[in-house]
Amino acid sequence: MSSATTSSTAGRPHLWSVDEHLEDILSTVQPLDPIELQILDAQGCVLVEDVTVPVSLPPFDNSSMDGYAVRVADVTGASEEYPAVLTVIGDVAAGQAEQLTVGPGQAARIMTGAPLPPGAEAVVPVEWTDGGLGAGPVSSMPAHSSAPEGASGEVRVHRPAEARAHVRAQGSDVQAGDRALTTGTVLGPPQIALLAAIGRGTVRVRPRPRVVVVSTGSELVQPGESLSHGQIFDSNSFALTAAARDAGAIAYRVGAVSDDAETLRSTIEDQLIRADLVVTTGGVSVGAYDVVKEALSSVGDPDEEDGIGAGSGVEFRKLAMQPGKPQGFGSVGPDHTPLLALPGNPVSSYVSFELFVRPAIRALMGLPADTLRRPTTRAVLTADKALTSPDGRRQFLRGVHDAEAGEVTPVGGSGSHLIAALAQADALIVVDEDVTSVEPGTEVDVIRLA
Amino acid sequence: MSSATTSSTAGRPHLWSVDEHLEDILSTVQPLDPIELQILDAQGCVLVEDVTVPVSLPPFDNSSMDGYAVRVADVTGASEEYPAVLTVIGDVAAGQAEQLTVGPGQAARIMTGAPLPPGAEAVVPVEWTDGGLGAGPVSSMPAHSSAPEGASGEVRVHRPAEARAHVRAQGSDVQAGDRALTTGTVLGPPQIALLAAIGRGTVRVRPRPRVVVVSTGSELVQPGESLSHGQIFDSNSFALTAAARDAGAIAYRVGAVSDDAETLRSTIEDQLIRADLVVTTGGVSVGAYDVVKEALSSVGDPDEEDGIGAGSGVEFRKLAMQPGKPQGFGSVGPDHTPLLALPGNPVSSYVSFELFVRPAIRALMGLPADTLRRPTTRAVLTADKALTSPDGRRQFLRGVHDAEAGEVTPVGGSGSHLIAALAQADALIVVDEDVTSVEPGTEVDVIRLA
Repeated sequence: MSSATTSSTAGRPHLWSVDEHLEDILSTVQPLDPIELQILDAQGCVLVEDVTVPVSLPPFDNSSMDGYAVRVADVTGASEEYPAVLTVIGDVAAGQAEQLTVGPGQAARIMTGAPLPPGAEAVVPVEWTDGGLGAGPVSSMPAHSSAPEGASGEVRVHRPAEARAHVRAQGSDVQAGDRALTTGTVLGPPQIALLAAIGRGTVRVRPRPRVVVVSTGSELVQPGESLSHGQIFDSNSFALTAAARDAGAIAYRVGAVSDDAETLRSTIEDQLIRADLVVTTGGVSVGAYDVVKEALSSVGDPDEEDGIGAGSGVEFRKLAMQPGKPQGFGSVGPDHTPLLALPGNPVSSYVSFELFVRPAIRALMGLPADTLRRPTTRAVLTADKALTSPDGRRQFLRGVHDAEAGEVTPVGGSGSHLIAALAQADALIVVDEDVTSVEPGTEVDVIRLA
Repeated sequence: MSSATTSSTAGRPHLWSVDEHLEDILSTVQPLDPIELQILDAQGCVLVEDVTVPVSLPPFDNSSMDGYAVRVADVTGASEEYPAVLTVIGDVAAGQAEQLTVGPGQAARIMTGAPLPPGAEAVVPVEWTDGGLGAGPVSSMPAHSSAPEGASGEVRVHRPAEARAHVRAQGSDVQAGDRALTTGTVLGPPQIALLAAIGRGTVRVRPRPRVVVVSTGSELVQPGESLSHGQIFDSNSFALTAAARDAGAIAYRVGAVSDDAETLRSTIEDQLIRADLVVTTGGVSVGAYDVVKEALSSVGDPDEEDGIGAGSGVEFRKLAMQPGKPQGFGSVGPDHTPLLALPGNPVSSYVSFELFVRPAIRALMGLPADTLRRPTTRAVLTADKALTSPDGRRQFLRGVHDAEAGEVTPVGGSGSHLIAALAQADALIVVDEDVTSVEPGTEVDVIRLA
């Protein structure tokens, strides 16, 4: 890191590209160590084990219908006119401990999911029988609690059944020893369903990253309080905490810290115990009160053995982008906790979050490299006049994307203080470094924000 | 509700369509009453007020750069060869209480975001000056803490500045009295940013619905425990709790309840205090142990004045769909809490959740009617052989959707017990009621599940 304030007069200082900066971040940020979590706590997390099926599903042959478990020979040729009349030996309900055996001329009344009893070869649905009432076909069984006699007496079966009819075979879903889920799978509701179904109460995953968000600025006031002259409300810490949660993190918002280097250092140090990633906003530019730069520039110096100073260092850079030119990145503290220092203008910090912090959070989660960034799509620019963009800077303008029409329309200007326009946008319009003007009707890159 | 078990023999019983059932649900489920929440707790919620800007943003003219606040006449014609030499009267930092006035021949060193001092008309960036060091142009200011002399002495300005250059005008983002956000807006990170920026600490929104998930079945065992004969692991309560969270709800998983009507009634009654919606699985079909049907059939009877019986009633229906034919819907308890009773087969309950519960949760959140269901898209069926589907039933098959190729491929069969295939799927393939066979290469409706 250079602390020189006098630049060479020989043209522009070096600017890092957006891609270089992101690559540097992603080459440093490693996936979090896996832990064993209850399956419902693992929702959205990446699996870090190959899960094998311990017991086949279903674990036993079972009925797919409410009906009667029968022997095929006993119902051969049955019709409504000439029903097969069978003796009902009892009920087979799901989860019932008692076991019945179906002999010749017998039937067991059976419920969906209940094990096919020994002796039985098929299930006839209750709708194919008189339900034991001696009249025409029925549409359902009476509740056992109010009509226990349904589990005895005789039943007339009106149709024949082939062997295995309405029987789900043991192992027809998955077999013991099958690979249920492979490492790297993201656990959504269906995967959690499968884990539960094969009896897994807990699972090994990478946890959600804990992200601590600190905004800086002596001018910042908590929303809901009142402003004095020269003060504004802190919005960055709210926006980035919400954005971090949206990206899958457990995010902690720390109130705005004033522009005092010692206060900032001790605040970050206090927070490290609950941080997998620290995000700051403000104080990274070229001013005389840029507290983040001041507080973190000494991190990694041999003299700094304790606290946040024990990290590997934080590098402050200028990027070839607008908004978001000044950026800091490195690690702090004894665990080398990654830290991203974003600029303080609200639009700059939000765009920087999208481009750099979101991929870092997803990398901590262990998500695949090709899914860390938001996808880019193409759309035709609709606007009253050409967009202008500074030469040599990649510009990210706020836009409204109409996916169906394949169009994108800028909202608000390029000013990095324009929060109202950001709140109307659902996309970023990307104007490349070598493009200084984009005519309406041109196709542009678009990053969808939601 | 009919409790008759003898059906007419005159053909099929009436089947409700999927759309009819969903319409009935959505005509009953009303958006939750709004409450005032901290803005970060309101993430993902629907705003229920028009939010007006109380104070313009920015609240005052301020600098967009780190530099020097000057009078335009003082820097007219300035160049590196013939710099304008100005007396530095002090620093204007963001959030600083002290106010300076810039007179003729004077400059105030100013930081990004700090108020433009009286007398000054423009800001020249520090890079256009010698930074007070008396040498060439500089790229930044030294930190005030280590070099306080930077706030005094002389500065050489190398370029002229137009009036208002690098000044963000008061109100250039939003003006006091402007509509910041309108009722019905879903609050994402950028909207939370805007609320904070205009000083709103809390906001009026519809809260996230609290959804209680109860699975039923005497055969169900908690994952992680061991199975006896005839038992299976409870997966539905896990799958639906995860799916409810995914849909935006605060979901509570209640352990599986055995097939005993009184136990189920008292369990549901206990849970009503924290439920905006109750979802049950299992016990809704035509068997003799269908406990949900048994326990809830008397709800709404005049004799049932207390507990869950005080609701409006729960109706059990057969739907023209596969999987998921038997469904229950109604309301229970003194607050008429909506209840959806889903079938117990894992795939049936999951598909039913997607089709009916997810829209109900989103309706409780107050989301717009046209966004309650997941969007349907079209894709070309790729398969080895034709899909078959029962006549008169809308079939929902599990599939893998390749959006780029515009193709969908079925995974697993139509069996409603096939959880493993569900865990590989990311879409449902819809086969309409009047279609019994779909050839590969045909375009089909596809519902994306994630």
